[in-house]
Amino acid sequence: MHRSRTYAIIIDTPEGEVDAAADFWSGVFGTPARPEPGEPQFQVLSRAIPGLTTAIQSVDAPARYHVDIETDDVPAEVARLIALGATEVATWLECHVLRAPGGHLLCVIPVASDPELFRSEARTWPDPPSELDGA
Amino acid sequence: MHRSRTYAIIIDTPEGEVDAAADFWSGVFGTPARPEPGEPQFQVLSRAIPGLTTAIQSVDAPARYHVDIETDDVPAEVARLIALGATEVATWLECHVLRAPGGHLLCVIPVASDPELFRSEARTWPDPPSELDGA
Repeated sequence: MHRSRTYAIIIDTPEGEVDAAADFWSGVFGTPARPEPGEPQFQVLSRAIPGLTTAIQSVDAPARYHVDIETDDVPAEVARLIALGATEVATWLECHVLRAPGGHLLCVIPVASDPELFRSEARTWPDPPSELDGA
Repeated sequence: MHRSRTYAIIIDTPEGEVDAAADFWSGVFGTPARPEPGEPQFQVLSRAIPGLTTAIQSVDAPARYHVDIETDDVPAEVARLIALGATEVATWLECHVLRAPGGHLLCVIPVASDPELFRSEARTWPDPPSELDGA
């Protein structure tokens, strides 16, 4: 078995519009947009939405939101979502990008939140039946 | 002054793909997708993300997510977001659809969550300076 929870809403923004978007969303949520150390493509909107990381990401793509799912077992969570109907789009660093039935993007990443928050909120998923079960 | 908070993440899905999307997201979050009484375009994913309403909406548009902001004063919140740089896209029933700098959609709606949740989590925004101030 493994565990996962919704970690973040990411506001993917075309590179040339990131500054305007950061000013706007900072005002919307009443919180500064702060660069993430070591990850210059992100600006984090701290405590914008309780319990959920909110960040603007500079992307070479049209504006979109996406959802990040954090998990203690990335291959198992990716396999679970593919079994539910998702397709793999790309792998970028530790992020597995999937496309949902219907067309939405979501990413699977290793646990990134406070371990206590993850422990208290993550859902537990059973292992899928093994090919050997019942053989 | 008025108040607002982030109420929902809406998974806008092309009409023909809503059933597949509902099955998928229901599995992702481990919660049923239930029709919303009186609002047949919505299927609500109850408790999918703590503190945030999560729903699939059937739309005549490509797949996208959008964010709903609930407020105790819709005209004041719409004016606040426009002053921050948003543009008005449409008004549909009680929902004011805005486009953020950078291109993302967000909606402003009257308070829809439990009043106690709204009271405890909403941010308070001061009135803008009146044209008469200092006159």
